[in-house]
Amino acid sequence: MRLLSSLLSSSTLLAHNFTSRLRIPISFQSHNFPRLFSMDSSEASLRNALSQKLSAVEAQGNAVRALKAAGAAKPEIDAAIEALNGLKIEKASIEKQLQAVVSGGGGDGSLNRESFRQTVSNTLERRLFYIPSFKIYRGVAGLYDYGPPGCAVKSNVLAFWRQHFVLEENMLEVDCPCVTPEVVLKASGHVDKFTDLMVKDEKTGTCYRADHLLKDFCNEKLQKDLSISSEKAAELKQILAVLDDLSADQLGAKIKEYGITAPDTKNPLSDPYPFNLMFQTSIGPSGLLPGYMRPETAQGIFVNFKDLYYYNGNKLPFAAAQIGQAFRNEISPRQGLLRVREFTLAEIEHFVDPEDKAHPKFADVANLEFLMFPREEQMSGKSARKIPLGEAVSKGTVNNETLGYFIGRVYLFLTRLGIDKDRLRFRQHLANEMAHYAADCWDAEIECSYGWIECVGIADRSAYDLHAHTEKSGVPLVAHEKFAEPREVEKLVIAPVKKELGLAFKGCQKNVVEALEAMKEKEALEMKAALESDGEVEFYVCTLGKNVLIKKSMVAISKEKKKEHQRVFTPSVIEPSFGIGRIIYCLFEHSYYMRPSKAGDEQLNVFRFPPLVAPIKCTVFPLVQNQQYEEVAKVISKSLTFSGISHKIDITGTSIGKRYARTDELGVPFAITVDSASSVTIRERDSKDQIRVSVEEAATVVKDVTDGLRTWEDVWSTFPHHTSASAED
Amino acid sequence: MRLLSSLLSSSTLLAHNFTSRLRIPISFQSHNFPRLFSMDSSEASLRNALSQKLSAVEAQGNAVRALKAAGAAKPEIDAAIEALNGLKIEKASIEKQLQAVVSGGGGDGSLNRESFRQTVSNTLERRLFYIPSFKIYRGVAGLYDYGPPGCAVKSNVLAFWRQHFVLEENMLEVDCPCVTPEVVLKASGHVDKFTDLMVKDEKTGTCYRADHLLKDFCNEKLQKDLSISSEKAAELKQILAVLDDLSADQLGAKIKEYGITAPDTKNPLSDPYPFNLMFQTSIGPSGLLPGYMRPETAQGIFVNFKDLYYYNGNKLPFAAAQIGQAFRNEISPRQGLLRVREFTLAEIEHFVDPEDKAHPKFADVANLEFLMFPREEQMSGKSARKIPLGEAVSKGTVNNETLGYFIGRVYLFLTRLGIDKDRLRFRQHLANEMAHYAADCWDAEIECSYGWIECVGIADRSAYDLHAHTEKSGVPLVAHEKFAEPREVEKLVIAPVKKELGLAFKGCQKNVVEALEAMKEKEALEMKAALESDGEVEFYVCTLGKNVLIKKSMVAISKEKKKEHQRVFTPSVIEPSFGIGRIIYCLFEHSYYMRPSKAGDEQLNVFRFPPLVAPIKCTVFPLVQNQQYEEVAKVISKSLTFSGISHKIDITGTSIGKRYARTDELGVPFAITVDSASSVTIRERDSKDQIRVSVEEAATVVKDVTDGLRTWEDVWSTFPHHTSASAED
Repeated sequence: MRLLSSLLSSSTLLAHNFTSRLRIPISFQSHNFPRLFSMDSSEASLRNALSQKLSAVEAQGNAVRALKAAGAAKPEIDAAIEALNGLKIEKASIEKQLQAVVSGGGGDGSLNRESFRQTVSNTLERRLFYIPSFKIYRGVAGLYDYGPPGCAVKSNVLAFWRQHFVLEENMLEVDCPCVTPEVVLKASGHVDKFTDLMVKDEKTGTCYRADHLLKDFCNEKLQKDLSISSEKAAELKQILAVLDDLSADQLGAKIKEYGITAPDTKNPLSDPYPFNLMFQTSIGPSGLLPGYMRPETAQGIFVNFKDLYYYNGNKLPFAAAQIGQAFRNEISPRQGLLRVREFTLAEIEHFVDPEDKAHPKFADVANLEFLMFPREEQMSGKSARKIPLGEAVSKGTVNNETLGYFIGRVYLFLTRLGIDKDRLRFRQHLANEMAHYAADCWDAEIECSYGWIECVGIADRSAYDLHAHTEKSGVPLVAHEKFAEPREVEKLVIAPVKKELGLAFKGCQKNVVEALEAMKEKEALEMKAALESDGEVEFYVCTLGKNVLIKKSMVAISKEKKKEHQRVFTPSVIEPSFGIGRIIYCLFEHSYYMRPSKAGDEQLNVFRFPPLVAPIKCTVFPLVQNQQYEEVAKVISKSLTFSGISHKIDITGTSIGKRYARTDELGVPFAITVDSASSVTIRERDSKDQIRVSVEEAATVVKDVTDGLRTWEDVWSTFPHHTSASAED
Repeated sequence: MRLLSSLLSSSTLLAHNFTSRLRIPISFQSHNFPRLFSMDSSEASLRNALSQKLSAVEAQGNAVRALKAAGAAKPEIDAAIEALNGLKIEKASIEKQLQAVVSGGGGDGSLNRESFRQTVSNTLERRLFYIPSFKIYRGVAGLYDYGPPGCAVKSNVLAFWRQHFVLEENMLEVDCPCVTPEVVLKASGHVDKFTDLMVKDEKTGTCYRADHLLKDFCNEKLQKDLSISSEKAAELKQILAVLDDLSADQLGAKIKEYGITAPDTKNPLSDPYPFNLMFQTSIGPSGLLPGYMRPETAQGIFVNFKDLYYYNGNKLPFAAAQIGQAFRNEISPRQGLLRVREFTLAEIEHFVDPEDKAHPKFADVANLEFLMFPREEQMSGKSARKIPLGEAVSKGTVNNETLGYFIGRVYLFLTRLGIDKDRLRFRQHLANEMAHYAADCWDAEIECSYGWIECVGIADRSAYDLHAHTEKSGVPLVAHEKFAEPREVEKLVIAPVKKELGLAFKGCQKNVVEALEAMKEKEALEMKAALESDGEVEFYVCTLGKNVLIKKSMVAISKEKKKEHQRVFTPSVIEPSFGIGRIIYCLFEHSYYMRPSKAGDEQLNVFRFPPLVAPIKCTVFPLVQNQQYEEVAKVISKSLTFSGISHKIDITGTSIGKRYARTDELGVPFAITVDSASSVTIRERDSKDQIRVSVEEAATVVKDVTDGLRTWEDVWSTFPHHTSASAED
């Protein structure tokens, strides 16, 4: 699914099936997917060993039966039975090993991942980080609400995105509607190509994604049917590798071949056919103006290019940005928050002169070093490895400085949010994943319990999008480079002499004229030379399908000098596109951990969100229920509000340990406990360290650490430590 | 349109026609709209005077013709002609006065407003505050993009909204999808009632809003046809007043009576019929799950009530909030940014015990005093006047403290954004504007070139919405009040004796049982008394339509004492709902002014945005193009970025005066001009005052004033003033 994510759409992100129907399908028999196709060598040998062992068990069984039938001596029969039992034990052992291998990464695999995911999800749903939408009406697949803490995390992530990208780079942020008229999405290609292949239960009409059914079949077979041969296993893995490249016919043929039926009813399935993933609607009352809910925010930027270029003083490069909702009417959403029908995208379109993709601030990120997974490493079956960004660009692994600059900025963005740098990699698209016009593409992939998930796509899309809208709208979306001094350029001039040509070719004069005018420079100059030396030349006119004889009098070919004052060109666009919901979900998983309660009798949930993204920065507790302490708590609360620090007072009589546990589970980084009228303690969530500060300073300390002006370590070395053993009870 | 804005929907805002179809239409002949119906007395007397003068002109004309026909003496004829001319001059003078009155507020009226609006809009569009969406494809009515400065203003307004409401009040912010399944909007009433009446051109099929056509006809007549009688004028004004209350039949009848035809073609029109204003779509591939783009964000909160109440520790009151897109498929959008098809709403649902609507922080706003326009003042034709909020609540003008608290907070929010307090009023809904269940409603109306515009609706909607979803979903959306001690309550128990009733009434036993069980307490106790004294009683069973004879053996009626541990009730909801786009548009108009350039040869545009909302807080200019100054500018720029202050460097060689003018037009409050390597000047936009500060301090000063930690006055009294006459050149 992630494979072959697309480029025709401006957003590679989430547009998994976007272009696979556009490009020539890669042959089903093709074997050029080493990384994806490679079967773990231990798996293949285990499958072979198992298959041999099964034959041996069968043969030995037959031997035992034969001995019995022949009335052989008991010791002989017993020995044969013993050998059979030995083979069965060996078989069982191989099965167990194979089971461990196929169920993911040598045994610790998918089951653990799933139970981890379940634990995190339970906590997230119970504390209302997110909620299935319209739950009281039994919900709608693929739609989720962010509850209070989730919503706060999301708005913190977006605020930081604005600070890190828009403000830092002086980007032009715009805000366009979701409702989009058809013409725009016709130009972008979405109306015709933004589809997934669907099959229907022939009796009930229930719809399924064709590739999902085939994928599930293959996975199920591979994981549960240990008896399949290693050749069969290889075939199934090959299908999984090229799944997104299969045409409707190929998918349909495989579904028939394997006898796949509707999962719920076992009814036969229809042939696969394309289903457009956009939510369609109608604009205005007439029913004559079809519209769609935008599948990405980028088109709103492209159609405004002319105005934005003007706003930027007609200068390149510049970037525009947009944060907003996007919509995809998934056939059957799965994977919780990762594949949903409505989601928030944050997209940047950085417009640049195609002849100069240097970036003035590249030096700021050149020394960063992180996991990269270039195309070649994938093809040769290697793993991602740490590469200094400067080296990746200078060696040409990353196509250009601007693309490299954004890769570096995305790395900084994600890791500052709290994404674990060891579970973050930048994977380059394989050649067959990219559209023909794309110069280079890298996905920021984050590893979570669903595997490596594409969360940010960073693509150099060349001039594709601006070209498409120029063509459809007739409004030139171009940039100009004014020359300091006019430049003299030589231009080829081909001037057919129509009178002569008319006399010679009568009815097909037009074809000849057009063919002459269409000659490339080299061909024209060869003709000129031939005419000058021989007076005539044979010339192939493809629209006539034959040679004609061109004489010197029929065409004048010359090179003329002209002065040009400017260069007019379509800018390239480099597009970092962020799936905010996916990033947040991965952040939840990376931030989650469990630790025992003080009494050791239960496991407590903690989210280690950095203050930047924590939904609430601070809680304020009076140690015991007491009017004086509550007054102090209110005074501190007022200062926190004034400083813009989100916080919560908890005046319930619950034990302080329970109150800490409650806020740890929301990822609140600091807790202020009021245990006197003059000073309070501040506790840091992960270390559980506590300092003692005066009531007046409390809000400022929390604000400084939250805003990143001081670190907890600074604070820890400045203020007296508090070590009350009772605090955690 | 604003009139009769509605309440059935959770959002009164923009839901102009929502409930008018639900309530019993007010009779067309009704005369109970004194405020709206009242005709300016000068207009009525001018219309009367004009009508008399026209008769006089006609009579005198006839007299002149008669004299001529009778061959009267020339002096006599000349005298009559002179009198006729005198009358004509008087007539023209009255016409002129009347024209001034009807074209709005005695002459300075609508034409000036329109040219003002045009000037502001031109500036806004030229500087890309907003852009008609999809402009290169000729746009779509009712859809606009925010360009860079508009988008920045919008995100500042939303950030301040979060700070002022969500953070300050510890509200539970949620984020729900726009795509909404039909069942939710069926429960809320939108599927059946969220309509406008539409007519079609019978030949071309072009659609129009029926009320718009009638409104345009009346306005046109009133403004351009000076000859209509004051009775006719009164009738037309009466129609305008009750326009939103007219049924389809009544609208159709008026359109026929006045002979109104399609504006573009003059073709006849269809009868009016309802058109649902929601954008419809289909969720998933089956086509069996209809959905809509939400027309408001509130429903997402209501359906989550149960979880949010739990999240809040099962305590009332609490408020939930949501910011998001909402959609209305207007029939024919007009009024630019004020009536659009997609817009951002910010809504608060404050849930409260219906028996206790006091607010602990009401004292914080009780002393505010601003323009209020209570129901009674509107009915008696008075104007809005300043009322202290505390008085409005204590006298019962505003229904309760919580509603009053939000009115006060909205006032503070809007004025801090920069809305002119003299063009802001809180107007109470008239009785006929409110749905039956609403306790009280006030609109924050802002005056702009389109008149008084509803920008925030603040409604006490009682338990309506939670009731509706409880009923439809079967999930009780209720709150519990646990009693400190169990309370003893007497409960009526009616126990029909089914055996006896069965014998007596056979086939209609069920009707009798139901009727008995449905008795109210008073009726039941009367029956009990009658049965005890007489042994039997006549009892009317409405489902049978007749009396039956009930005997003592047929029913046992008693009062029993029970212990109750808690009270279960549906909370009331108080809903402030903000139309962010409308607020921003009014803010643009209120912030705009013109002032002459220094040379006096042109008028320059300025937006006096407070730093809080200004799209860019600061510009940095090197005074002249010079590498040293540019370096200093970059150093300051870095500090500003670090402090999170949005800014722009302008290193063009343009004169400093022109550069100031450019940024004034974007409403940038501060400009730092680099004219030495050690110190710089900071200029304030509106006063044009300049101070001199060191390079190191520059960013901090701008940050402090922007964040409201210091005022410009503080800064002005602290730093040396800079008075270079050349600076404004």
